[in-house]
Amino acid sequence: MELIFSTWNEVEAYLDRSKGIVIPLGSIEQHGPNGLIGTDALCAEAIARRMASEGEILVGPTISFGVAPFNLAFPGTISVRSTTLMALVTDYVRSLAKHGFEHFYFLNGHGGNLGPLRAACQDLQAERSYGEDGGQRSIRFFFRSWWEFPTVDTLRREFYDDGEGMHATPSEIAVTQALFPEHVKAAPPTNVARLSTSYLREHAGDNHADAHQHRQHFPDGRVGSESGLATPQQGLMLLDAAISDGICDYKSFLESF
Amino acid sequence: MELIFSTWNEVEAYLDRSKGIVIPLGSIEQHGPNGLIGTDALCAEAIARRMASEGEILVGPTISFGVAPFNLAFPGTISVRSTTLMALVTDYVRSLAKHGFEHFYFLNGHGGNLGPLRAACQDLQAERSYGEDGGQRSIRFFFRSWWEFPTVDTLRREFYDDGEGMHATPSEIAVTQALFPEHVKAAPPTNVARLSTSYLREHAGDNHADAHQHRQHFPDGRVGSESGLATPQQGLMLLDAAISDGICDYKSFLESF
Amino acid sequence: MELIFSTWNEVEAYLDRSKGIVIPLGSIEQHGPNGLIGTDALCAEAIARRMASEGEILVGPTISFGVAPFNLAFPGTISVRSTTLMALVTDYVRSLAKHGFEHFYFLNGHGGNLGPLRAACQDLQAERSYGEDGGQRSIRFFFRSWWEFPTVDTLRREFYDDGEGMHATPSEIAVTQALFPEHVKAAPPTNVARLSTSYLREHAGDNHADAHQHRQHFPDGRVGSESGLATPQQGLMLLDAAISDGICDYKSFLESF
Amino acid sequence: MELIFSTWNEVEAYLDRSKGIVIPLGSIEQHGPNGLIGTDALCAEAIARRMASEGEILVGPTISFGVAPFNLAFPGTISVRSTTLMALVTDYVRSLAKHGFEHFYFLNGHGGNLGPLRAACQDLQAERSYGEDGGQRSIRFFFRSWWEFPTVDTLRREFYDDGEGMHATPSEIAVTQALFPEHVKAAPPTNVARLSTSYLREHAGDNHADAHQHRQHFPDGRVGSESGLATPQQGLMLLDAAISDGICDYKSFLESF
Amino acid sequence: MELIFSTWNEVEAYLDRSKGIVIPLGSIEQHGPNGLIGTDALCAEAIARRMASEGEILVGPTISFGVAPFNLAFPGTISVRSTTLMALVTDYVRSLAKHGFEHFYFLNGHGGNLGPLRAACQDLQAERSYGEDGGQRSIRFFFRSWWEFPTVDTLRREFYDDGEGMHATPSEIAVTQALFPEHVKAAPPTNVARLSTSYLREHAGDNHADAHQHRQHFPDGRVGSESGLATPQQGLMLLDAAISDGICDYKSFLESF
Amino acid sequence: MELIFSTWNEVEAYLDRSKGIVIPLGSIEQHGPNGLIGTDALCAEAIARRMASEGEILVGPTISFGVAPFNLAFPGTISVRSTTLMALVTDYVRSLAKHGFEHFYFLNGHGGNLGPLRAACQDLQAERSYGEDGGQRSIRFFFRSWWEFPTVDTLRREFYDDGEGMHATPSEIAVTQALFPEHVKAAPPTNVARLSTSYLREHAGDNHADAHQHRQHFPDGRVGSESGLATPQQGLMLLDAAISDGICDYKSFLESF
Ligand code: NI
Ligand code: NI
Ligand code: NI
Ligand code: NI
Ligand code: NI
Ligand code: NI
Repeated sequence: MELIFSTWNEVEAYLDRSKGIVIPLGSIEQHGPNGLIGTDALCAEAIARRMASEGEILVGPTISFGVAPFNLAFPGTISVRSTTLMALVTDYVRSLAKHGFEHFYFLNGHGGNLGPLRAACQDLQAERSYGEDGGQRSIRFFFRSWWEFPTVDTLRREFYDDGEGMHATPSEIAVTQALFPEHVKAAPPTNVARLSTSYLREHAGDNHADAHQHRQHFPDGRVGSESGLATPQQGLMLLDAAISDGICDYKSFLESF
Repeated sequence: MELIFSTWNEVEAYLDRSKGIVIPLGSIEQHGPNGLIGTDALCAEAIARRMASEGEILVGPTISFGVAPFNLAFPGTISVRSTTLMALVTDYVRSLAKHGFEHFYFLNGHGGNLGPLRAACQDLQAERSYGEDGGQRSIRFFFRSWWEFPTVDTLRREFYDDGEGMHATPSEIAVTQALFPEHVKAAPPTNVARLSTSYLREHAGDNHADAHQHRQHFPDGRVGSESGLATPQQGLMLLDAAISDGICDYKSFLESF
Repeated sequence: MELIFSTWNEVEAYLDRSKGIVIPLGSIEQHGPNGLIGTDALCAEAIARRMASEGEILVGPTISFGVAPFNLAFPGTISVRSTTLMALVTDYVRSLAKHGFEHFYFLNGHGGNLGPLRAACQDLQAERSYGEDGGQRSIRFFFRSWWEFPTVDTLRREFYDDGEGMHATPSEIAVTQALFPEHVKAAPPTNVARLSTSYLREHAGDNHADAHQHRQHFPDGRVGSESGLATPQQGLMLLDAAISDGICDYKSFLESF
Repeated sequence: MELIFSTWNEVEAYLDRSKGIVIPLGSIEQHGPNGLIGTDALCAEAIARRMASEGEILVGPTISFGVAPFNLAFPGTISVRSTTLMALVTDYVRSLAKHGFEHFYFLNGHGGNLGPLRAACQDLQAERSYGEDGGQRSIRFFFRSWWEFPTVDTLRREFYDDGEGMHATPSEIAVTQALFPEHVKAAPPTNVARLSTSYLREHAGDNHADAHQHRQHFPDGRVGSESGLATPQQGLMLLDAAISDGICDYKSFLESF
Repeated sequence: MELIFSTWNEVEAYLDRSKGIVIPLGSIEQHGPNGLIGTDALCAEAIARRMASEGEILVGPTISFGVAPFNLAFPGTISVRSTTLMALVTDYVRSLAKHGFEHFYFLNGHGGNLGPLRAACQDLQAERSYGEDGGQRSIRFFFRSWWEFPTVDTLRREFYDDGEGMHATPSEIAVTQALFPEHVKAAPPTNVARLSTSYLREHAGDNHADAHQHRQHFPDGRVGSESGLATPQQGLMLLDAAISDGICDYKSFLESF
Repeated sequence: MELIFSTWNEVEAYLDRSKGIVIPLGSIEQHGPNGLIGTDALCAEAIARRMASEGEILVGPTISFGVAPFNLAFPGTISVRSTTLMALVTDYVRSLAKHGFEHFYFLNGHGGNLGPLRAACQDLQAERSYGEDGGQRSIRFFFRSWWEFPTVDTLRREFYDDGEGMHATPSEIAVTQALFPEHVKAAPPTNVARLSTSYLREHAGDNHADAHQHRQHFPDGRVGSESGLATPQQGLMLLDAAISDGICDYKSFLESF
C-alpha cells in the first residue's frame, strides 16, 4: 500500500491494522559516467514500494534529497544541508505521529543521510521526553541501508568483489538498470585503485573531503567502484533479495522494539 | 530530459545549451474521499516530465512535500513547516546555481507552497545582493501553478463550473485518473455549499484555519469541490493543455527575464 | 484606538468588545529620486491609524521593516530576510493570541512582504494544529495591500494610467505628499519604458533580480513609475478612499471568516 | 536628518559627510495603569529624532519591538524572542554596512533588549572576523539607554527619588506626557513597596520571573514605580536633558572608537 | 557536590534539600603572552567547585566555550556564536528544570558571554510564559562575573591598580597561577597604554572591533592589562575571596528571588 | 600538549609542526546506581589528555555535553539537542580552521553524539564546497569512540563478556574508578536481562525510546550492563590500551586522509 496512491479514509483504516510505515530516503547526486543522478532515490523507492506490494506494509513518499556535499563539483548534484534533511524528517514524523503512527522504518539509499537522520530522530525523542509522563504513545525508529541486507550483501560481494567500491557501486547501478532498462548506459573502467577495507570503514557515512578536493581525487565521480560490471540481470537478483530481506527486517522491527 | 535519469556528463552538456530548469512542487495531503494523498505532487510531476519530453527542457526532481497544516486532522497528510520547504528550495537552488543554472521555473501543484517559495527565493536573492558587484551571474525565478495556465483554466471552468471549488478539485482528480487509471475511486457528492468568488479569493494560497477547525468546516476534506465529476478523459485533456501551455510559458520566461 | 497609545486596562476592555486588530506592514527602501525611504511603512501606518480613528478598530504597532533585497544597492535601504520578518510576525501574533485576539488583518504596504507573511501565518496555524482537538480558540488571518482596495485601484489608474508602474509609484508618493507636505520633493521623468501588464503580473510580489542587476536595470530606483506625476491632492483622495474601503474590508473579514 | 523621510540620493550624500547613525530601540509592553503600551519605543524614538534635528546626525527607523516576556500576562504586550530581535538587528546593520555605514549608536528604551542586542552585535563582528584580513572596513557599536545619560539620571533621582522604581517609571511616563499631552492618564498610587538598590541591580536588564509569576508579584504592572508622580513639565526637562547629553555622547562615540 | 561526580540517585536526594545549582561559564581564547587559553573556564570552574565543596551547593558542568570573536585572529581561540551559547544554555536549563531545579546561578568568567546568556534566559522565561497559568514551578536566574565580587574587586585594584586592564588581566592570570603552578609563564610588559575608566565602561561586555582590527590594536593580545604583575600568591588570595563572597552571594540569591 | 594550558604563541608554534588536533566528546547523563553522571566526558577527556602527553599531539577542550534525551527521566542528566551539539562542533571547527588546523580527530565517549557529529561535519564540508575552487586548504574529520579501539574491545569482552551491555558499561565505570578512586561507588546486580547482539546492533548510536519509556524499561538506568563488575585495576588496563591504540589511530589518520 502506497501513501501517495491512498485516500485518507484508506489510511485511517490501515491504522486500525498497523502503526508502521516504511520511508525511503535517497540522494540526488552524480553516480559516475554511467550512473543516474537519481540512483539512490530510485533504488530505495523501488525496494520500498515492492516491499509494500508484497507484504501488508504501507510505504510513505520518498525523501529524494540527501546530504552529499562532496559531490557538488559534479553538475547535476543537489545536496541539502544536514539541517534541511533533519527538518524534513522531523515534519514527516510529526505529521504521521499525530495520526497515530508509531513505527518508522527508514529504508536508506545514501550513506551521507545516516548522521542527520539519527540526529533528527534523537531530537524527536527529546521533544517527547519533556512534559508529563502520562499516556503518550511511544514512537520508535529503525534505520537500514538496503545494501546491508544480508542476502544483498552476499550477492554484491559475489558479483563484484572489491570492484563494489563505495560510490556509484555496480550493485546500485545494476538495480537501476533492472528498473529502467531504457536508461542503461556504458562506462569505461575506473582508473582509481581499489579501496582497502580500512578506507571503506573510515569513510563510511560519506565522510569525504569538500567538493573541490573530492573531484580531484575521483575525477569521474566513482569512488573505487567498477560500475561497468553492472548488468540488469544482477539488478533483478539484488532487488529480489532486498525485497524479501526487507520484509523480514521490517516485521522484526515491528515485533521487537 | 529528466535530471534523475541523467548522468553528470549529460547535465554538463545540457548546460552548454541552456541554463534553465523546471522544478515541480507538490504536497502530500488528503484530497477527499476519492482523491489520492499524493495528488499535488503527482500532477505537477507528470506535467513537468511531459514538458521535458516534448520540449528541449530539463526537469528536476519533484519537491513532493508541501505546506498544508490545515489538513493535518486527516490521516495520511504530511505537512512540512514553511521554514522546512524554504530550506529545501534554498539548497536545491544553491546546488544548481553552483553548476551554472540561472533560470528556475517552479511548476507548482499546491497553493500553500507559494508563500514559502517566494520567501525562500527572496532570501536567495538577498544573499547574492551582499558582497561585491562583480561578474556574478544573475539567477531568476518564476512561479506558476498549473491550473493558472489559460487553456487549463478555460477547460476546468467549462467542465466543472463552480463545482471546481478549492481543494480536491475535480480537475486535479481528473488528471490523476488519467495518469493512474488503476487508482480511480468513486466519491459521493460533496455536502458543502459552493464557494463564492470572494471566498476563493480571500482564502487563496490556502489561507485556512487550523486543522481542528478545518476538519469541522469540511468534514470529508473537500473544500467546495465536486470531485465526483472528474473523469479520466477530462484529465487527459487537462494534461495536454497544461503541457502545451507550460512549454510556451517556460520559453517566455527564458526569453523575457 | 491605537495599541501604542493605550494602557493594558484599555486593551483588556477592548477585548470584551472585539477580538480583531489591524497590523500595518511596510518596508524601508529607496523610492526613487523623490520618494521617501519610509514610504511603504508611512502609507500603511497612516491608513491603518485613520481606519482606527474612524471605525471602532484597534491598530497595532507598525512592522516597518520589509523584505526588499532587490533595493540593497541603493543607499538607505534596510532589507530584512524573509525568516526575520516571519519571526517577527510569529511573535507578534503569539503575544496577541495569548491575550485573546483572534482576527489578524494585515494591512500591507510592500509587495515583497506577502510571501513571508503567508509563510509565517501557515506555520502559526501548523503549531496550533498539533496537540489535542479541544476548545482552543481559532485564529484567522487576512492579507490586504492597500492599493488593492477597489476605489484606490480605480483612482490610481485614473490619475496615472500606465505611469503607475511597479515601484515608487506616483500613488504611494502622492499619499506621502499628503501626509508630510514638508517632505515633498521633485523628480525628473523616468527614463525607463512603461511596463507591460504581463511584466507587472510575473514580477508581482517583488520577484526581482539581485541588487546589482536591479540597479543596472533601474538606475534611479523607480520600476516603471512616473513618480513626478504625484500631487498631494491626489494623495488625499487616495487616502480617503483607502480608509473607507479599508473599514468595509476589515468588517467583512470579522464577519465572514 | 531622518532616514524614513530621506531619499536614497540624500543618504548617499550624507555618507560623504559621516558614517554614523542613531538607532532607537523600544518595546511594546504594558506600562501600568497610566502608562502607554508604546512608552519605550515612543521615548527612544522622540529623543533620537530630536538629536537628529539638532545635531548633524542621521536617525534610522525605530525598532519598536522588544524582549519583554515577563509582561505577557498583561493584555496588549507584544514580546519578541531574543532571537527575533537579534535577527532584526543583524539585517538592519548588514544592510547599512553594505552602504558604507560604520558607526552604529543604539539608543535604547528598554532594559530587556540589551542582552540580545549585544549578542547580535557580537555575531556581526564574528562574521566579519572570518575570511581574509584585507581592507574591509571596520564597524563599531555603541549601546546607551537614555535614562543613563548623566543629566537625565540626576533629574529623575531629584524628581522621584526611590519612586522612580524599575518599570513604568515616572520619568518615562513624564516623557510620553510631554510628547503626547492628549494621552495623559491618571494613576492610583502603587501598592508595591519601594525597591532596594540591590533589587534594582540584580534585576537589571529585566531579569524577571515568567509572566504568570510576574503578574502575581506586580498586579498593576508597575515594578516599584510611582508613576502617578509624572508631569508633562518634568517630561520636557527630561527630554531636553536627554537630547543634549545624547548629542555629546554620540559625538564622543564617533571620535573615540 | 559536583554533578559530574554524582550518581542520579544522589542528585535525586539533593533535590529534596535544594533546588539550586551553580553553573560556571568560561571562554577558550588567547590571554596574551603568558596567559592560558583556557583561563576564563579554568577560573570560573575552580571558584564554583570550591564553593561547592565548602557550602552545601551543587555545581554543574562548566560551559567552557564563550563568545569571543574579537580574539579570532590569535591562534588557539575558539569562539562560539551567541546563538550557539544560547542553545547550550537553553538545553542545560531545560534539562535541569525538568528534574525540578529552580534556581540557576551563573558564575561567569568572560564578559562577552553576558549578552547571550541574558538573551537565552529571557527566551526560557518566554516559553514558560505561554500556555496556562497553572501550578508550574517558577525558575529564576542570576548572573555574576567572579571579578565583581566585592572582596575580589577590592583586592585586584589594590594589587594592580590600572594595570588590571580589561583582558588577560593580572588577576585572572594570578588565579590560574595559583591553580596550575606547573603552567606559570613569564610575560614582557605590555606596550599598550593604560585604559581610561570610560574606555572600560563603553567596551564592557567585550564590545570590541572585529578580529583583524582587534589584533592590530592589541598586538600581543592583552587589552591594557599588565599581566606580568600576577603572582600565584595573589591568585590564592583572590580565589579565597571569590569563594567566600560567592557562597554568600549564592545564598542571598536562593533567599531573595 | 593541551590547548587550555597553552598560550597563543605556543599554538602558533605547534601549527608549524602539525595541523592536527584531538577533540574529546562526552555526555552528562545518568550512569546507573554507581556510575558518575560525567562518565562519558571524563573518560574521553582522560584518554585524549594522556594521548597528548605521550605523543606529540594537541588536545582541545572537551565538548562535555552530549545528546542523550532517553536519559532525561533520571535526575541530573543534561541532554542537548542534536542541533545544539552541531552548532558547537561547527564553531569549534570554524575557529580552528581559521588558524590553520586541518585534521580534526574526534575522540568520542557517547554513542548518541555520532549522528549529530557526522551531520555537522558534512555541513562544514558543504560550506567549503561552495565558492571558488582555488587554493583553499582542505579539512578532514575522523570519528572514533574509544571502546572501538581493538585492544580495548578485546579487554572489555574478556573482562565482562555479555555483562558489558550498552549503557553504564562496566568498562567505562572501571575507567572512572581508575581516574577518580575517591568516587568509587558500589552497585547491586542489574535486574535487566542480558542484551542480544542484534539488540545492541539495532540500538547502536543510542537509538532508544523517549525518556518516559526508557526509564520504564530500564528502571535503574543501566541498559544491560553489569556495572558492579568494574574494578579500578581493569580501568587502568583499559586506559593504557586506549592511549596506545589512540596514538596509533590518530597518526594513521594524519597520514592517510
Ligand atoms: Ni548511490
Ligand atoms: Ni491538490
Ligand atoms: Ni513602495
Ligand atoms: Ni519602559
Ligand atoms: Ni579572561
Ligand atoms: Ni557512558
